[in-house]
Amino acid sequence: MSKKAVILLSGGLDSATVLAQATVEAYSCYAMSFAYGQRHFHELDAAKKIAAYYKVAEHRVVTIDLGAFGGSALTADIAVPKDRTEDQMNAAIPITYVPARNTIFLSYALAWAEVLGAADIFIGVNAVDYSGYPDCRPEFIEAFERTANLATKSANFKLHTPLIHLTKAQIISLGMSLGVDYALTTSCYDPTPEGKACGHCDSCILRKKGFVEAGVMDPTEYD
Amino acid sequence: MSKKAVILLSGGLDSATVLAQATVEAYSCYAMSFAYGQRHFHELDAAKKIAAYYKVAEHRVVTIDLGAFGGSALTADIAVPKDRTEDQMNAAIPITYVPARNTIFLSYALAWAEVLGAADIFIGVNAVDYSGYPDCRPEFIEAFERTANLATKSANFKLHTPLIHLTKAQIISLGMSLGVDYALTTSCYDPTPEGKACGHCDSCILRKKGFVEAGVMDPTEYD
Repeated sequence: MSKKAVILLSGGLDSATVLAQATVEAYSCYAMSFAYGQRHFHELDAAKKIAAYYKVAEHRVVTIDLGAFGGSALTADIAVPKDRTEDQMNAAIPITYVPARNTIFLSYALAWAEVLGAADIFIGVNAVDYSGYPDCRPEFIEAFERTANLATKSANFKLHTPLIHLTKAQIISLGMSLGVDYALTTSCYDPTPEGKACGHCDSCILRKKGFVEAGVMDPTEYD
Repeated sequence: MSKKAVILLSGGLDSATVLAQATVEAYSCYAMSFAYGQRHFHELDAAKKIAAYYKVAEHRVVTIDLGAFGGSALTADIAVPKDRTEDQMNAAIPITYVPARNTIFLSYALAWAEVLGAADIFIGVNAVDYSGYPDCRPEFIEAFERTANLATKSANFKLHTPLIHLTKAQIISLGMSLGVDYALTTSCYDPTPEGKACGHCDSCILRKKGFVEAGVMDPTEYD
């Protein structure tokens, strides 16, 4: 029987690529997504399609109330910044930062992994294009892995971050080589009611640029 | 204005003592409890009474679905062990262990603390009487604190564990000196439908013994 792995799956470009990678590595994949009050909840529909496409062993959508804490443009009633340059994006931690989000997501993944008897957890964090988020850095991942192994009975957890040092273009090139259908994925923080990407938030800008640099056609429908 | 602190409050003896300690240290206290599918959900009523008694600035009860993962006698349909000796309790990690529970609780506390602008988080873990739980050990707390400071914008978090090296009797003595009303607290893992403590689970046994050793009358009504 193949080894089990828990894959954090947001519905975005990065986590779809990570799921493809874990699948290619012959893991039996348990995908976990979160309904956390994000305004871009359409990403959960994308996550479901991606999970089905990859025929995961199980896909769980966990509802958590991060919105109750406020503090982020992704969960509170704060405008998503538009049309920023990369210098502006990199100047400070963006308002789209959600306090402790990856810590909470990884804690749930850890709980599920321990119950499943899975030692491997995959997360699509990236320290290159999104360096503004502190919980995407290698130091954070290493610290969480250490914490996970002290927190649990099993104490043999490995966090896999295959994208952490890749540019968005490199992630897309990797995904294309793995056969990812990026039309299933969504990146926009502030889509139209019909689910079309705005084309102007940081996430859309980085996605567009990534496809251009990778020399791949972007299948996204922008507003 | 006094400094804010987030206090994890279960409704048990330990966390009530921790809240008393934080109150005495003049923190403005934000109490956080969890409805996580525990069979002993009466502890949430106790948590509410304790929070009111200490006039906390705010008390949040966060609903999380740990039960969906199964794997513990506290959340799944597994019998709670009764009348065990301390040697039996210490022989292995007990079936009442909930996978990654403190990691998840601390992650939520971290998110709330960051939004509140609080740098201090109090948790009533104890490595003496409950050494069977890996996520109550000092190594775990230190690793989580390090993770918290890498995960967040603020990066100045301090985890306070005033009980970590105390015996149950010492915790009760400390609490009595702080004026804790232990009649408000509850420890039982498997209470009667009316909320009376069973008197026979590990938690009841350790509570009883603690009061005896501290030379304090146990106000608990046992079945």
